[in-house]
Amino acid sequence: MASFVRRFPDGDERERMVCTDCGYVAYENPKIIVGAVVVAGDRVLMCRRAIEPRRGFWTLPAGFMELGETLEEGAAREAFEEAEAVITMDGVLCIFSIARIGQVQVIFRARFTHAEAPTFRPGRESLDAQLFRWHEIPWDNIAFPSVQWALNAWKAVGAAPLGVAFAA
Amino acid sequence: MASFVRRFPDGDERERMVCTDCGYVAYENPKIIVGAVVVAGDRVLMCRRAIEPRRGFWTLPAGFMELGETLEEGAAREAFEEAEAVITMDGVLCIFSIARIGQVQVIFRARFTHAEAPTFRPGRESLDAQLFRWHEIPWDNIAFPSVQWALNAWKAVGAAPLGVAFAA
Repeated sequence: MASFVRRFPDGDERERMVCTDCGYVAYENPKIIVGAVVVAGDRVLMCRRAIEPRRGFWTLPAGFMELGETLEEGAAREAFEEAEAVITMDGVLCIFSIARIGQVQVIFRARFTHAEAPTFRPGRESLDAQLFRWHEIPWDNIAFPSVQWALNAWKAVGAAPLGVAFAA
Repeated sequence: MASFVRRFPDGDERERMVCTDCGYVAYENPKIIVGAVVVAGDRVLMCRRAIEPRRGFWTLPAGFMELGETLEEGAAREAFEEAEAVITMDGVLCIFSIARIGQVQVIFRARFTHAEAPTFRPGRESLDAQLFRWHEIPWDNIAFPSVQWALNAWKAVGAAPLGVAFAA
């Protein structure tokens, strides 16, 4: 089994986790959660989690960004994995640092690519997927505080243009 | 020495790097570069790199976000390390995914906290630090394409409000 100690690698100003067996330096950097507030008219797509943590609670399609993808590709992948929804990004809605758990969340506002006939259904990690109007959102059963923050950001900005450049 | 192979860990849908000596799974996720376009009037703070890659070329204060800090704290830390500048964030200026190298860059627009008397000087990783007007920027000696992209985003937005929510 791996056994890690905190040690200063040569030339580094911070302690890093170093494996006592093999010397591997496991650089620990914040990880990116990417997701989307997928809007259809006045309704938003939410998923009921089939997996822990917070199984049975409602969330936005979001998850860990993977190597080799852009933010937009990651958000689209998560929407397909969790709700089999094909989406197009409008722009970056909000960005949250959650320093305590080493996360940065980048949440897009998005729409169904086929907006005239949006299709979706629960993916493998979801028990349910639904479109909710603001007052229909299951506020008492939200999975994570960041879901509330992103919904609040959508409420604040509505359909207004989003200004941040998000691609090269 | 560590010896890694690509393998599917139990329950994972992607191959990960697994150490053959000790079984450690080195999840590789995109890393976050955080930085700032630090504006003083019509001038922008730039640093001439003292380290490789691109030693001698000009860049914006930016670097790898570390665990335990927010995006804003990371951008402020980099501005201090590279230019001994104390800065305050205005908002998120631009976000770039560079999938090929597994990076996401989050660049703020910022100002000197003591705007009436901005102070700065080259930090340990810089040969020089200067404020440039747009036409004074050393365009032929820019370190990275993303520096140009961020400067272009600043040119496009100027001093206009930045809309993205960037803190919880």
